[in-house]
Amino acid sequence: MSQVAIVMGSNSDLPVVRGAIDVLKTFGVDFEAHVISAHRTPAKAEEFAKKAASSGVKIIIAAAGKAAHLGGVIAAYTTLPVIALPIKSSFMDGLDSLLSMVQMPAGIPVAAVGVNAADNAGILAVQMLAISDNELAKKLQEFKAEMAASVEEKDKKLQKELYDNI
Amino acid sequence: MSQVAIVMGSNSDLPVVRGAIDVLKTFGVDFEAHVISAHRTPAKAEEFAKKAASSGVKIIIAAAGKAAHLGGVIAAYTTLPVIALPIKSSFMDGLDSLLSMVQMPAGIPVAAVGVNAADNAGILAVQMLAISDNELAKKLQEFKAEMAASVEEKDKKLQKELYDNI
Amino acid sequence: MSQVAIVMGSNSDLPVVRGAIDVLKTFGVDFEAHVISAHRTPAKAEEFAKKAASSGVKIIIAAAGKAAHLGGVIAAYTTLPVIALPIKSSFMDGLDSLLSMVQMPAGIPVAAVGVNAADNAGILAVQMLAISDNELAKKLQEFKAEMAASVEEKDKKLQKELYDNI
Amino acid sequence: MSQVAIVMGSNSDLPVVRGAIDVLKTFGVDFEAHVISAHRTPAKAEEFAKKAASSGVKIIIAAAGKAAHLGGVIAAYTTLPVIALPIKSSFMDGLDSLLSMVQMPAGIPVAAVGVNAADNAGILAVQMLAISDNELAKKLQEFKAEMAASVEEKDKKLQKELYDNI
Amino acid sequence: MSQVAIVMGSNSDLPVVRGAIDVLKTFGVDFEAHVISAHRTPAKAEEFAKKAASSGVKIIIAAAGKAAHLGGVIAAYTTLPVIALPIKSSFMDGLDSLLSMVQMPAGIPVAAVGVNAADNAGILAVQMLAISDNELAKKLQEFKAEMAASVEEKDKKLQKELYDNI
Amino acid sequence: MSQVAIVMGSNSDLPVVRGAIDVLKTFGVDFEAHVISAHRTPAKAEEFAKKAASSGVKIIIAAAGKAAHLGGVIAAYTTLPVIALPIKSSFMDGLDSLLSMVQMPAGIPVAAVGVNAADNAGILAVQMLAISDNELAKKLQEFKAEMAASVEEKDKKLQKELYDNI
Amino acid sequence: MSQVAIVMGSNSDLPVVRGAIDVLKTFGVDFEAHVISAHRTPAKAEEFAKKAASSGVKIIIAAAGKAAHLGGVIAAYTTLPVIALPIKSSFMDGLDSLLSMVQMPAGIPVAAVGVNAADNAGILAVQMLAISDNELAKKLQEFKAEMAASVEEKDKKLQKELYDNI
Amino acid sequence: MSQVAIVMGSNSDLPVVRGAIDVLKTFGVDFEAHVISAHRTPAKAEEFAKKAASSGVKIIIAAAGKAAHLGGVIAAYTTLPVIALPIKSSFMDGLDSLLSMVQMPAGIPVAAVGVNAADNAGILAVQMLAISDNELAKKLQEFKAEMAASVEEKDKKLQKELYDNI
Repeated sequence: MSQVAIVMGSNSDLPVVRGAIDVLKTFGVDFEAHVISAHRTPAKAEEFAKKAASSGVKIIIAAAGKAAHLGGVIAAYTTLPVIALPIKSSFMDGLDSLLSMVQMPAGIPVAAVGVNAADNAGILAVQMLAISDNELAKKLQEFKAEMAASVEEKDKKLQKELYDNI
Repeated sequence: MSQVAIVMGSNSDLPVVRGAIDVLKTFGVDFEAHVISAHRTPAKAEEFAKKAASSGVKIIIAAAGKAAHLGGVIAAYTTLPVIALPIKSSFMDGLDSLLSMVQMPAGIPVAAVGVNAADNAGILAVQMLAISDNELAKKLQEFKAEMAASVEEKDKKLQKELYDNI
Repeated sequence: MSQVAIVMGSNSDLPVVRGAIDVLKTFGVDFEAHVISAHRTPAKAEEFAKKAASSGVKIIIAAAGKAAHLGGVIAAYTTLPVIALPIKSSFMDGLDSLLSMVQMPAGIPVAAVGVNAADNAGILAVQMLAISDNELAKKLQEFKAEMAASVEEKDKKLQKELYDNI
Repeated sequence: MSQVAIVMGSNSDLPVVRGAIDVLKTFGVDFEAHVISAHRTPAKAEEFAKKAASSGVKIIIAAAGKAAHLGGVIAAYTTLPVIALPIKSSFMDGLDSLLSMVQMPAGIPVAAVGVNAADNAGILAVQMLAISDNELAKKLQEFKAEMAASVEEKDKKLQKELYDNI
Repeated sequence: MSQVAIVMGSNSDLPVVRGAIDVLKTFGVDFEAHVISAHRTPAKAEEFAKKAASSGVKIIIAAAGKAAHLGGVIAAYTTLPVIALPIKSSFMDGLDSLLSMVQMPAGIPVAAVGVNAADNAGILAVQMLAISDNELAKKLQEFKAEMAASVEEKDKKLQKELYDNI
Repeated sequence: MSQVAIVMGSNSDLPVVRGAIDVLKTFGVDFEAHVISAHRTPAKAEEFAKKAASSGVKIIIAAAGKAAHLGGVIAAYTTLPVIALPIKSSFMDGLDSLLSMVQMPAGIPVAAVGVNAADNAGILAVQMLAISDNELAKKLQEFKAEMAASVEEKDKKLQKELYDNI
Repeated sequence: MSQVAIVMGSNSDLPVVRGAIDVLKTFGVDFEAHVISAHRTPAKAEEFAKKAASSGVKIIIAAAGKAAHLGGVIAAYTTLPVIALPIKSSFMDGLDSLLSMVQMPAGIPVAAVGVNAADNAGILAVQMLAISDNELAKKLQEFKAEMAASVEEKDKKLQKELYDNI
Repeated sequence: MSQVAIVMGSNSDLPVVRGAIDVLKTFGVDFEAHVISAHRTPAKAEEFAKKAASSGVKIIIAAAGKAAHLGGVIAAYTTLPVIALPIKSSFMDGLDSLLSMVQMPAGIPVAAVGVNAADNAGILAVQMLAISDNELAKKLQEFKAEMAASVEEKDKKLQKELYDNI
């Protein structure tokens, strides 16, 4: 049973979306992933969105480019939190996707992350699950500590570089 | 039986949409109009889009603001031409609506007109119908001639003004 | 004990933020609200963010305008989900706030809603809580049904208007 | 006799425009294609637009980049539906072309598709013809079904991949 | 006989365009003004542009809003310099007009001034005429000197204010 | 003695600016070209602008990128027409240059052409000179005719292609 | 003798610029203010910039709108730090001014503050002076403390409001 | 003891930031550089900012991309001047970074330079130090003179080229 379901509008989105998949695997969160198009397979989108909650899904990540309706179409049929991941298309670095996702009308929110920010979509999903899962919350704190450590490591390397080669 | 169906995402769009209604009435085209939200009443949107063709509708005009998914959601369920009318919301004069509508993925086009250009949505619908309706085609030519005459009238008035008051 | 904490960068944001407060009250969710500036009271922001989880807060809504750093600054000090609400400032209808919030670096996500979309920030918070609160989940479904009913009501009114005055 | 006439502002637009040509050929729609520049061969543009309807053309697709006036210039001389295809130039991914096309003044609409969305321009033309051509309408439904099937195929492949290599 | 001809796409542009008219009158340049729409009266636009040079016009100012094709349409039919004056419409403060005018394809330039900068359109016309008119050149220098004097006057007033009331 | 003077903010602009040089050579217009920076050699810019008219220059083309002040700085010191050529820098395809040039304050116009449109800058200069030079005017008409012929040639090639390979 | 000199491109900028004046007066910093136009009084701008350092000025604040060259023109003639204050004009909320100021070429920096952010221009000037003025540095810390206190005061008021009227 | 401290949000910013380092070395200004993330190592950012002034730092350069909060977060904890260097990320050429940095709220300014303009960040720091350091002021004048000489050199080379190969 998946806690997080990832849907992407096209399989060409997979290279970006994989960033979210990797995060979920790192945190040991059960997930599923689907190619569902809001426009080409709307019935699938509807069916998926309607059944998601009852099949145990807690959070949906919807990734799409251009006039990215997938997040909104899913959100229309469920009350689960929908994380919208705008995929950069060939127009204005994904401004079209970003606005098509984030500017949802009142009453049907999605939770937008940055353009192509698949890792953040994954982490946000984990954060939402961690509201009621202390183990995940602890893992998030460790993850945060590791990120900090990694930055400090890079700073140390920079200090060395500065005194060596610059 | 309506040849053109207008759907708008919210009744607050009506003041703008009326421009399309007026055009259709002027040309004597039978139409219907509905408030259907892609996000709040998705089932209605689906039902409407699926039945439109069989109930005699030939063209759909979809008006919506912000992350304007209505055109795309309708187009997902029908092969009728969908004219997308982006409504100016309070963000960047409707750039969000325009991009959310016009940047549809390959395979599911909509026909976008300018932001708030309801009259043009109406005229475009008439033009599509006129492909197989000579009477409408003739009316369009008269309409064009009247527009030209009106511009020329304004030019005459300007000439008079220039020699009088300027 | 509050489940949701709302922070806003300035008390001038309150008229917009009230939309989130109203939603939380409607759903019976305990909340608190604070004026905390990422730039003017950074120590407060840090202190608040660090203590939020241990004091029982489950979700934080951060509202700010212009170079809206509040969401990011809070997210830096907590692993709770942070909903970022970009407030429209006087520059490009809040594009500055939107980009300052949504484009977070990898590892520290926020969940952005649309510009000034306070109601959606509130609903999103409820959706996150509803992951582990069946009562809230049920209320969300009722809310969704009421929204649909309200749209259908407006459609009926439109039908009447169309046959009466247009 | 062509039902659809494609005009492009420059032969450098052909690689993109070919997407529309392919669609028309797939659907068995007779078409013609011309290089006509609104600015360099305005007399040609005028002559073409004036004669189009009487020579049997039912729909015009106009493709152009930069200050893309071609759609508007054609639309000025005909009442046939003009589908405007903004070509991405080297400036802001075609925002100039898109705005130059979609923002037509009241009375002279064009039907804009997305930047470089030649396939959609072709499909939209077919949809317009299908208003009065049941065979085409049926082909469009088959096309839609195939698209859906293709997405489902990709989803199946993804499922396999997820269980195999991820 | 007019040296400068002003064309505007709509008589609603007149309040802005008047800024150019005033400049031409100040400099004693003979001019004419017309309401000609590139889209509604294309034949007029063509006729006007073709005859302009032979009827003694030396420079054309074309003012239009939205998808502002007027400058380009005129330039297509003449080799006279065409000054393009983008009129601010209700979309993004005239960005659509500006891009529709300034981004002309190679071979058919227009000389764009700023959005709504009618006075500058007028002065630019005078500058072009002054290439071969020493009297106008002298007047331009006087005009420049007066502008400078006026700025210095304002500076003096500011100095007084600063020591008095601030 | 040069009729047209080209100034560019940096010698890195030369590859683009060469388009204008080629045009001027084609039309047999005497020209000069300089690297002058509004910010690095302001005294040179001033000196150049002040002397231009008296040394016989009739038109100045100013090419610059980023915060492109060169056109304005030159225009501040001369009443000759200044053609502003925005050079595409690495930011938003030259939107910064375009706005820095075209949005001049009232009283000091420049004549802006499109981003990187050096050929159009050259042609515009020729058009301005042709106001009082019949020979150039005739050459411009021939140039226009050749452009038209070239487009028609390309159209013929397309017709052949369409019947052969497509 | 003034430590800070404020120049503005037009006296219409004064209502905004006054924010900087107020800050400088609050901090007891001697200042002067001038209306100097980069384009209308370029000789004044040059003269001012050249003499500023030797007459004791330490920092220059340059405020201008539209194609805001004033900061760059001043910076071209001095090595003093130039704070650039983009003034919101009627186009895209001052995006033109912002880009015209901030995107300076390599070698000639300006220090840009936000659009219309006159108070911040003033504070930044004080911060620069405080590098070598301990008294000012202390005042800045007090100012910061007062800002923090004021935000906390507003938070207290909000707490009261939340328990009273909401 | 460093007079200038450079902080960058990520070590991936170093290739750009090196431009500032090179300038500081050229001018013989003592500096230090750190990788500090506003979001991943907020405690470090705070600690650094709080101690900077007392450890002798006079100016801070903060470089960051995307939702670039680093400048603001540093500025929140110090009254030293903070030069904000927006790093171009993969979205709209750094418009997100620029707006996230320059649009700071009233009371907490940063001094923004152009996107990726690291050299200008360095020069601006030198200019600020030169307020109270005559030697640096003299070096800046020499630097300015060298830049001018270099431009004039390039102009000479162009003159040669123009007479040789063009």
